[in-house]
Amino acid sequence: MPEFKTVRGMRDFLPEETRMMKYIENKARSVAESFGYQEIMTPIVESYELLATKAGEEVRLRMFAFKDLGGRMVALRPEFTPSIARVVATTLKNEPKPLRLFSVGSLYRYDEPQRGRYREFWQSDFELVGSSRPEADAEVLMVTARLMERVGLKDYIFKVGHVGVLRGVLIDEGLNEKAQNAVLQLMDKKQYEDSLVRLKDSGASEKCLTVSRGLIGLRGSNISETVEKMKTCVDGYEKAVAAVEDLKEILKLVVDSGCKITVNVEAGFARGLEYYTGMIFEVYVPQLDVALTGGGRYDKLVELFGGQPTPAVGVANGVDRMMLAMQEQKVTLKGTAEKKVIVISAGDETKSEALRISHLLKDAGITVELEVMGRKMGKALEDADRRKLDYAVIVGKKEFDEGKIVLKDLKRRKQTTVRIEELQETLKS
Amino acid sequence: MPEFKTVRGMRDFLPEETRMMKYIENKARSVAESFGYQEIMTPIVESYELLATKAGEEVRLRMFAFKDLGGRMVALRPEFTPSIARVVATTLKNEPKPLRLFSVGSLYRYDEPQRGRYREFWQSDFELVGSSRPEADAEVLMVTARLMERVGLKDYIFKVGHVGVLRGVLIDEGLNEKAQNAVLQLMDKKQYEDSLVRLKDSGASEKCLTVSRGLIGLRGSNISETVEKMKTCVDGYEKAVAAVEDLKEILKLVVDSGCKITVNVEAGFARGLEYYTGMIFEVYVPQLDVALTGGGRYDKLVELFGGQPTPAVGVANGVDRMMLAMQEQKVTLKGTAEKKVIVISAGDETKSEALRISHLLKDAGITVELEVMGRKMGKALEDADRRKLDYAVIVGKKEFDEGKIVLKDLKRRKQTTVRIEELQETLKS
Repeated sequence: MPEFKTVRGMRDFLPEETRMMKYIENKARSVAESFGYQEIMTPIVESYELLATKAGEEVRLRMFAFKDLGGRMVALRPEFTPSIARVVATTLKNEPKPLRLFSVGSLYRYDEPQRGRYREFWQSDFELVGSSRPEADAEVLMVTARLMERVGLKDYIFKVGHVGVLRGVLIDEGLNEKAQNAVLQLMDKKQYEDSLVRLKDSGASEKCLTVSRGLIGLRGSNISETVEKMKTCVDGYEKAVAAVEDLKEILKLVVDSGCKITVNVEAGFARGLEYYTGMIFEVYVPQLDVALTGGGRYDKLVELFGGQPTPAVGVANGVDRMMLAMQEQKVTLKGTAEKKVIVISAGDETKSEALRISHLLKDAGITVELEVMGRKMGKALEDADRRKLDYAVIVGKKEFDEGKIVLKDLKRRKQTTVRIEELQETLKS
Repeated sequence: MPEFKTVRGMRDFLPEETRMMKYIENKARSVAESFGYQEIMTPIVESYELLATKAGEEVRLRMFAFKDLGGRMVALRPEFTPSIARVVATTLKNEPKPLRLFSVGSLYRYDEPQRGRYREFWQSDFELVGSSRPEADAEVLMVTARLMERVGLKDYIFKVGHVGVLRGVLIDEGLNEKAQNAVLQLMDKKQYEDSLVRLKDSGASEKCLTVSRGLIGLRGSNISETVEKMKTCVDGYEKAVAAVEDLKEILKLVVDSGCKITVNVEAGFARGLEYYTGMIFEVYVPQLDVALTGGGRYDKLVELFGGQPTPAVGVANGVDRMMLAMQEQKVTLKGTAEKKVIVISAGDETKSEALRISHLLKDAGITVELEVMGRKMGKALEDADRRKLDYAVIVGKKEFDEGKIVLKDLKRRKQTTVRIEELQETLKS
């Protein structure tokens, strides 16, 4: 007999955790609604090709990839963005822009399991497609801030950068995209010295090395000060300067809108996914080492999937990571104070009557469990007590024939006889 | 450039369909709550061994199975029951019974795609664990009936059988489990003649063949009449007679409870999964060839996964199939009559103010889109019209300095100037 357990890196969620997961999911859904994002669903199994394109080596090597029974190379999605970009490039290609799309579901990466990092994880995903303007980037930041606030998290910090700054420098230095990606990937892994060596090997100038080193060390929570320093640092690299200006405008909009978030601007910040072209960000809480959220601008992806050139910006929020953060921060959900009732038939001859009464109560929106174990009354009541039910409705032949049942208030240890037609109301009050 | 599309058998759900899927999911969740079922989540990726045990050849051969990067043989779940039974046998093994567990999510089978049958599909799953009594079977039937009613479906028919009847006959004939499964699998595929040949080859008596042939042809919508015929048919096979009695009691409870469902009793009804031991059922609507729902009793599965002997009964409802049925039956969802607003800044100098006002409206629960395309006013309004938004809030420098904005009623083509502090209320009324 093999031992049956979850596969390494996968988890079960018991009722209390599931409730929290669904709570976060629904908060994300309501934020999506309030910003006008429409929900779509895409498959968990996608073509390997689609998911591997532009995912970046980190993610590509950790995909759950396999051949299906028809010999197709497929994989479990490691993120939402390629699927959404596929839909935008195909089914929705003629829809006027902007498109605001929302999705929520599970994703898969073969990472080394650790706290907050599992091989199956959940995200709620927001994508704003069709606008290249800073208002769009600002909206995605604000969507994220609102979600954090709505689930009741505190002390979250937005780490914000702009891949256009460093890419701008490297493009002017004549580095091709592959060489750029190699440098950015090393930076993403915080292997800064290696990234500079790589840069030198790629033929970058001394000035470029100085600028890059400067960007790596440049970070701060005073937005305007840090952004000004970035601008000075990349002076002479035209595309990089424009990228700093873009970042400046995005953050100005967020701050001026009255959205109260703590921002750390990091000039050397890179993300593992190759498709980012502009502003990028992550959200952290002090209680967790991993990011709760990651997002940014990706202006080339839809085009790459066969669509028109379509700028886009989006964010994915880790649902299970947010749950973990909420647990750490002791965020409590508002309890549903629903009364719970067990209906017990006193004997075999009233079983159907007990069922009828349970239907009656369910119709009134009351949670009703039925005694299905055939236990003696005492046992059944003891169990109802243990399970913290509020009431027991006991259906006996004698009372039923008089149109009544016995209602036991399990919390107050009181027992009354109630007319069946008054039962709904008695329990509701 | 490869063409990017969904993998064969997988689908995207656009906003309207997604809304319907979530509607059904939430109805299932509310039925679960009202019957006292607690929601849990289990992984989509499980060990192959767990999923293959007792799945039946049909399902086993159609699993998405593969080795993960650690060399583990895993598969995408083709159904919920093994995962739930695993949780019951391990994490929840010391929980007092009954356990009522609910789950909802996607499942995977490599079937030939056809209408209502896809390789990725969704189910809501109810499992009642710990009771061997007919009340439990009746509850699962009633849960299913309530869900059908709640989503607004009509003309659904419950096809009900009991694998204990035929198995009872075969056990008394001395057929081992493997031989029984082979016969039942052929019956499930409606290869009745083949099943009788198989039976004969397994050494079954002439009487057994006559009885089996009798059961295969025996079906009817008059419950008590059909059940009595079944009893007569299996006369002399003690276990089979007890199974008929069990079925009779289950259906009596359902009918007496006032639950109004149309039942077709089919004595020769078998389901593909090997783990069923008692009552089995499926639900059909005239508009679809495939079953909306399938369920039944499986008293040995938890034990097989290393748990205590634990009787259980459950049902899985096809969420996407119910959606299809609802579309066929033209069931309409109650529309959310939420007002939708677009906020447009008249010029660049009021962009932040426009953002602030959009926050204000979102706080009041209003759906607000922001103009992020940098379009001229006329273009933006034209687009808002096309998208059937209700109002445009135009933020201009002059009005804003006086604490006002311009409100355009896009439906009635009226324009007024409104004080910002009165805007929430104006839009809500």
